[in-house]
Amino acid sequence: MSLEDGGTDMDPGKRDIMDATHSALKKHGYGDLTIQDIADEFEHSKSLLYYHYEGRDELLVDFLEYILGEFLGNLPDEGDSPREELDALVDILLPTTVDEKPYRLMLAMFELRMNAPHDEAVREQYITVEMALRDTLEDILQRGIDANEFVDVETRIEAESLLSLLIGTRARRLTVYDPDQSIETLKAAIDAHIDRLSTAESDRNH
Amino acid sequence: MSLEDGGTDMDPGKRDIMDATHSALKKHGYGDLTIQDIADEFEHSKSLLYYHYEGRDELLVDFLEYILGEFLGNLPDEGDSPREELDALVDILLPTTVDEKPYRLMLAMFELRMNAPHDEAVREQYITVEMALRDTLEDILQRGIDANEFVDVETRIEAESLLSLLIGTRARRLTVYDPDQSIETLKAAIDAHIDRLSTAESDRNH
Repeated sequence: MSLEDGGTDMDPGKRDIMDATHSALKKHGYGDLTIQDIADEFEHSKSLLYYHYEGRDELLVDFLEYILGEFLGNLPDEGDSPREELDALVDILLPTTVDEKPYRLMLAMFELRMNAPHDEAVREQYITVEMALRDTLEDILQRGIDANEFVDVETRIEAESLLSLLIGTRARRLTVYDPDQSIETLKAAIDAHIDRLSTAESDRNH
Repeated sequence: MSLEDGGTDMDPGKRDIMDATHSALKKHGYGDLTIQDIADEFEHSKSLLYYHYEGRDELLVDFLEYILGEFLGNLPDEGDSPREELDALVDILLPTTVDEKPYRLMLAMFELRMNAPHDEAVREQYITVEMALRDTLEDILQRGIDANEFVDVETRIEAESLLSLLIGTRARRLTVYDPDQSIETLKAAIDAHIDRLSTAESDRNH
């Protein structure tokens, strides 16, 4: 499966497993999740699930690839302005408030990330996730510079910076904010960062 | 103990427990750490340790307070320029390369952070850590603005932004980089961010 197709050419059996995993993570979170919890959300023969995967963590690595595909596939079209695209990406990754189930999924993804130092397959998958996100950000920035919406910056460096900022904000949202607490202040900080990359803001200040 | 005194007025017994915890974390990391591992690094009567703490996680919350005090106590003096102070703070939190033992400690601290959603005491302590770091960053920025080293920004917002950037960079260093791999690119991204806050850079660009 390519990363960009949102998993549309995935075989239907595997897609159903991914959907079941999605439901199970939203319901149970990561820590206590068992492969049986996933099987309970799976409408087909459980043996199909066990045929594909030996254990929970192996399945979750595939789920990480799947959710990345979903995320990239659901980004706004290039028809919007690059600044609007970037704002939309930030809102998808970091809604200002978040309901219980998406919160649990967001937390599960970060807890899985923290397995990367101990699990090579998870680590490899997160390297892929980060490269895809960085490339997406770099592409938006480059198109923004070409359209004179963003000031002329080193896109690779600025994409890294944005990605660190987004990942750090997610870590903070998950660990020092209540799930239903607004992260308005953290998002204002991201906006200020993007404003400084924008020609509109730059014209205003100078 | 106040957060700013680096724990210097901590009672000697407790300080020794913290030193033992420090050694144990560097040796064993967080996941498999037992209170016995800490006791093994402790030169005094083990009963003193068990007298103070019922379990590992309770002890680690105190360790978090201790290490924050150590960190704040070891920041460069205000004699340096605010920009130099900020660069030094970044280097302490994010050395470009890191040896095995400090890496293990850095990872342990992040794994402990990921307990915050499940453990109220950890969460409260991380809220304190973040407030102390944000206040420190805000203070450096304000002094930098007063000294005309930084452009006139909203210090609270920019401190939040810097903190998210630093925490995100630490998360990425720990999960998608090898311990001994250089994070030069990630640090260049932080530098670019700080450059844009600096009057020197601003003069150069406009």
